[in-house]
Amino acid sequence: MRWYPVGKGNMRMDVSDLETPAVLIDCDRMERNIAVMQARCDSLGIAFRPHIKTHKIPAIARLQIQAGASGIACQKVSEAEVFADAGFDNIQLPYNIVGPQKTARLASLAGRCQISVSVDDEAVVIGLAEAAQAAGVKIEVLVELATDLLRTGTSPENAVRLARQIDSTSALHFAGVLVYPSHPANRPTLLEALDRLQRSGISVQMVSGGGTIAALSAHEVPELTELRVGTYIFNDWTTVQKSAASLDDCAMQVLATVVSRPVSERAILDCGSKTLAADQLDGQYGYILEYPQARIVKLSEEHAHVDLNNCDQRPHIGEQVHVIPVHTCVVTNLADRLFGVRGNNVEVEWQVAARGKVW
Amino acid sequence: MRWYPVGKGNMRMDVSDLETPAVLIDCDRMERNIAVMQARCDSLGIAFRPHIKTHKIPAIARLQIQAGASGIACQKVSEAEVFADAGFDNIQLPYNIVGPQKTARLASLAGRCQISVSVDDEAVVIGLAEAAQAAGVKIEVLVELATDLLRTGTSPENAVRLARQIDSTSALHFAGVLVYPSHPANRPTLLEALDRLQRSGISVQMVSGGGTIAALSAHEVPELTELRVGTYIFNDWTTVQKSAASLDDCAMQVLATVVSRPVSERAILDCGSKTLAADQLDGQYGYILEYPQARIVKLSEEHAHVDLNNCDQRPHIGEQVHVIPVHTCVVTNLADRLFGVRGNNVEVEWQVAARGKVW
Repeated sequence: MRWYPVGKGNMRMDVSDLETPAVLIDCDRMERNIAVMQARCDSLGIAFRPHIKTHKIPAIARLQIQAGASGIACQKVSEAEVFADAGFDNIQLPYNIVGPQKTARLASLAGRCQISVSVDDEAVVIGLAEAAQAAGVKIEVLVELATDLLRTGTSPENAVRLARQIDSTSALHFAGVLVYPSHPANRPTLLEALDRLQRSGISVQMVSGGGTIAALSAHEVPELTELRVGTYIFNDWTTVQKSAASLDDCAMQVLATVVSRPVSERAILDCGSKTLAADQLDGQYGYILEYPQARIVKLSEEHAHVDLNNCDQRPHIGEQVHVIPVHTCVVTNLADRLFGVRGNNVEVEWQVAARGKVW
Repeated sequence: MRWYPVGKGNMRMDVSDLETPAVLIDCDRMERNIAVMQARCDSLGIAFRPHIKTHKIPAIARLQIQAGASGIACQKVSEAEVFADAGFDNIQLPYNIVGPQKTARLASLAGRCQISVSVDDEAVVIGLAEAAQAAGVKIEVLVELATDLLRTGTSPENAVRLARQIDSTSALHFAGVLVYPSHPANRPTLLEALDRLQRSGISVQMVSGGGTIAALSAHEVPELTELRVGTYIFNDWTTVQKSAASLDDCAMQVLATVVSRPVSERAILDCGSKTLAADQLDGQYGYILEYPQARIVKLSEEHAHVDLNNCDQRPHIGEQVHVIPVHTCVVTNLADRLFGVRGNNVEVEWQVAARGKVW
């Protein structure tokens, strides 16, 4: 059942035809963002590998490839399966793939496209080796280095051990190292790892960095051979606040309706945590373009609580507003569809093909 | 494409066959939770109206109706449409339905089942009246009272005005008042509204309260004629921390795999904010049953960052753990499927039919 209008054949759909909350993508801005990041990598002479987690839509990844991207990055095997099914043939997974079911699926993918995957532990290498051997395929393996993110990743010293372990397995090939985020603060670790590998006689083909904000300082980490970046394509309130984008670079906007004005200083929008996600930045959950002094201070599942105390003009019930979300990727993951708009025209409706793919 | 095993025909599926992260529902606990809340309402002599936002699955709502529930509550029209299509004929929407498309869909629903809806403003009543008149249906309307939640809702004084406005419209019928949450702190407002309505000669058939935690003190608000409750069916870390449930009442558990152990004091699970949602309680994002001293202190989209400093025993890569989420409803909304388990047996796989319904 579809309860919203769609533009079919000769029928033109305007933004005003959409039900709210609706996740809009400004096509002009998205296309500009794609071109700018590709140009940045081109000028640095490094490969660009967009991370599809931000849009999760094969048609958009195709625009990135057409602009010059060398391949894509996916975070989970199930995302990679969606994109492999859509014809993408160079996919990197910067994630430890653990467990016999997942490694078997990864090996199966490696039988039909070029797959690279990261590891940070011996146990992960053993699992990959077993699956690759069983499937009769060869998998390219990158060693992930620990960074100031304090998430996954190993030490430069252990990277050498892992590289040796990988290359001692005929079904695996040590392809290089991976860091996230690859901003200059993490360069000393990277340099130490590269030095240790070189002194051990281990060649490194790929040095994969990542992060929308780190991309701005990629020229300060000349060891990188490629960049994995996701958020840049839509941007969000976080990239704006971190000076990695301007408001005019924000291609994603959530169209929302004011559904309640219980008191003078409060408005309630129909985009709650089921639309904007509960990610927050400095206690705020989004930025309302029409009311820059307003603050989204709390989310319920279907309500955004807006503090209007600083606003001279205040919205009325039924009014529509545009919200720049705090974190674009998680908004995409909550939406079944994104609407590509140009001006007031809804040009395309994309199904979010890899939404909810956590396996 | 299905890349996980499913039990079909004679094939029995064990929990160990599931890929992680998987959202498990302990059927024994769920059934007990259903029975206990129904018994509570029965003993108070009030109607019970489960809010489906927690499970979003018609088959589970049917269990609630079979146990004695009088109808269901949905938060958005699109959720109500899913449940009406599944045969539910008494649906309440405790939400301002705003905009011509949504009110038309609501009126259409009212033509095929018993619909009640809440309002907190004159403008919302006008929109409902127009749609009901155009569709030739009658809609039951409740006035929502403002509470200490500081979200939606109007004053007792304005409730009288809204009730008069509703009853002056032939297509609408004033059905009563609605509060959320209905804990005793909000009783004075409720009493004032009921008193003002009575003194104005306006009869009140329904006094609808709500909230899993407020349900525990429903006997202290004897004016209530029905309770709307959602979370109680699965419970979560929040209801446990607020003493509304014990750990043994938590029917929802997220089965997750340890995918990285980068340093001794940190583990990374494969359930990030795309699985657990970013809702947090006191800086934590879930409770790990096997490691009660561990703390989930941060989520990335596909990573749960676990602080193991207080743990004597620590998990290894590949180990599976069970996580009680902070907020069960938003976990359901991220999952395509929930797995109903009894012991180690996966008894049923439910599609989350009303997942992502924000319209």
